[in-house]
Amino acid sequence: MKIAELDTPVLLVDADAFERNVARMAELCANAGVACRPHAKAHKSPQVARLQMEAGAVGMCCAKLGEAEVMAAAGIEDLHITTPVVGASKIARLLEAARQSHVSVVVDDADNVSDLAAGAQTAGLRLDVLVEVDVGQGRCGVPPGPRAAELAGLIDGHPWLHFRGLQAYHGLIQMKGDVAERRAAAAEALEKAELSARLVREAGLEIEVLTGGGTGTSAIDAAAGGLTELQPGSYIFMDTNYSAIGWEGAPAPPFENALTVLAGVLSRPASDRAILDSGMKAISGDGGAPRTVEHEEAEFRFAGDEHGQLSFPGEAPLQVGDKVTLLPSHCDTTVNLHDRFIVTRGDEVEDVWDIAARGRSQ
Amino acid sequence: MKIAELDTPVLLVDADAFERNVARMAELCANAGVACRPHAKAHKSPQVARLQMEAGAVGMCCAKLGEAEVMAAAGIEDLHITTPVVGASKIARLLEAARQSHVSVVVDDADNVSDLAAGAQTAGLRLDVLVEVDVGQGRCGVPPGPRAAELAGLIDGHPWLHFRGLQAYHGLIQMKGDVAERRAAAAEALEKAELSARLVREAGLEIEVLTGGGTGTSAIDAAAGGLTELQPGSYIFMDTNYSAIGWEGAPAPPFENALTVLAGVLSRPASDRAILDSGMKAISGDGGAPRTVEHEEAEFRFAGDEHGQLSFPGEAPLQVGDKVTLLPSHCDTTVNLHDRFIVTRGDEVEDVWDIAARGRSQ
Repeated sequence: MKIAELDTPVLLVDADAFERNVARMAELCANAGVACRPHAKAHKSPQVARLQMEAGAVGMCCAKLGEAEVMAAAGIEDLHITTPVVGASKIARLLEAARQSHVSVVVDDADNVSDLAAGAQTAGLRLDVLVEVDVGQGRCGVPPGPRAAELAGLIDGHPWLHFRGLQAYHGLIQMKGDVAERRAAAAEALEKAELSARLVREAGLEIEVLTGGGTGTSAIDAAAGGLTELQPGSYIFMDTNYSAIGWEGAPAPPFENALTVLAGVLSRPASDRAILDSGMKAISGDGGAPRTVEHEEAEFRFAGDEHGQLSFPGEAPLQVGDKVTLLPSHCDTTVNLHDRFIVTRGDEVEDVWDIAARGRSQ
Repeated sequence: MKIAELDTPVLLVDADAFERNVARMAELCANAGVACRPHAKAHKSPQVARLQMEAGAVGMCCAKLGEAEVMAAAGIEDLHITTPVVGASKIARLLEAARQSHVSVVVDDADNVSDLAAGAQTAGLRLDVLVEVDVGQGRCGVPPGPRAAELAGLIDGHPWLHFRGLQAYHGLIQMKGDVAERRAAAAEALEKAELSARLVREAGLEIEVLTGGGTGTSAIDAAAGGLTELQPGSYIFMDTNYSAIGWEGAPAPPFENALTVLAGVLSRPASDRAILDSGMKAISGDGGAPRTVEHEEAEFRFAGDEHGQLSFPGEAPLQVGDKVTLLPSHCDTTVNLHDRFIVTRGDEVEDVWDIAARGRSQ
């Protein structure tokens, strides 16, 4: 089947670009001797996870327990949940997933540690736990300093929990446009992580894993050498916002845009205007408007939940029924709108990957 | 099961408020002698559609063919697709849906009329077609004036097509805050629709249906009496943006907030701050930040795709594991993130409605 035969809107993955992205991140991590644990929140697809594992990933990150459940059920073997899992019901689910796959989870709260320990004991299952340190994001995590060692000690005191290390993720610096600023911010985050790690070690505990980083700081973190494990997500697909930032030692980004939404022209209400069948329910707007691959001169505007409007400086070179390719501004939230990726190579449809964990926000 | 026992984030519908909203719109339409054809794009759920039909709706609107397919398969009997259906593949699907349920569709393009006629003839099935008139939205539709009559004539010339009337929807005026301004804008839109309708009638064709309007102009359109059918969507759920506009003849909106997202507290990183498990993948941000029902003083900020941050003027009265209720700013795009509604009455969970057409953007 040809791409041109697909009904629109449809989410496409360019297999060639995707494969190069997977290989490049794997190589970057291998060369630096750092483990690669890609973030499944970017794709929510066990099929994509398997390809990342085949390229050398040590396991996957999951933002939510629901994602980990889908990955575990699909046989993905090593899962790290990057957000605290809170409450009896979710802890029971966590331990159920941990029967199917190796699962670790972060904590930043002493009561949560006790709850996890009680759950693990009841389940008869030893659980790996990492302490999240807030290295600048201002979201979850204990502040850098002695608090991580205190929580690590608590974890270590529970026979059904195993203290595995620290998580030090800083999402806000991933898209800093200037490479030098991004490098400085990453160094500052790493310093906070290492301070906390030193205090944990001084308390007599081992840090097996110091996990963090994202696509934007991947080359910087790999070169710096402090983290033992990187958590990049977006590199497999990229988007217009990620492509627009400066990239270390390269004129072009090391990762290519591999994710697009193919949209159809529904109406040509004016000579300089085309109405597309793709609005906020087909491509996310939280990162800004998408870009139109075939018509760089056209301006996309969301025209409601189900429509987009393309405005041209002159006559719009489009007819009703034509198709245009939209580059998302934000890959993660665009993926989360769709149930599957249509995988293409050249003009041909090659495969379909289910976004099996789409909407699994619990 | 109690609401408090649900895992979060979870999409809730307050059955009492929902039922009052359904009854009020049904009454408004019945009193005005105008047909009510609610828009399924707001809920994408055959179970909700059935309740609207039981309250007197003549059928449902669908924004996309994919929604109509789900509704037809679920036995919803009269469906109107409010967006052009373009291309051979989709026209074949349209006719397949029209075998299961009565289906009408809008057009604004002569070639599309020919394609629909050819498809209908091949399928051996007579299709109802309405001409969309752009009454101010600047999206799909022919301009007000003679063009509608020309297209109506084309439709009437095809034995396998039946010209049913005009669609005159203006989404942009639905949320005008000032009632007088909204009333004036609705009158202007209606004038454009009636001009087009007059020219169609002068060409010897009957207008069986003049369909349009939305939640914001529902009382205005019902009172004006020009439209034969209203297409309101959001009234069943409402959201903070719809609740904030002025409402005709009432101090409070005639429709109540019935849709919320229950979120959980994941972390308490600072005394005045709580981190929630609900970000842009659980509640939409295109209409602005949600409001927190129990803590009007708190400010919600999206903290990524999976997290929200609640900031308080003083000490945050929340602990890890607590739950808070978020009121969406935009109901349609929030619904489209979830796979089901959990229906509640008081503190109890009463039912589950599948959002079966979620993501059906084709």
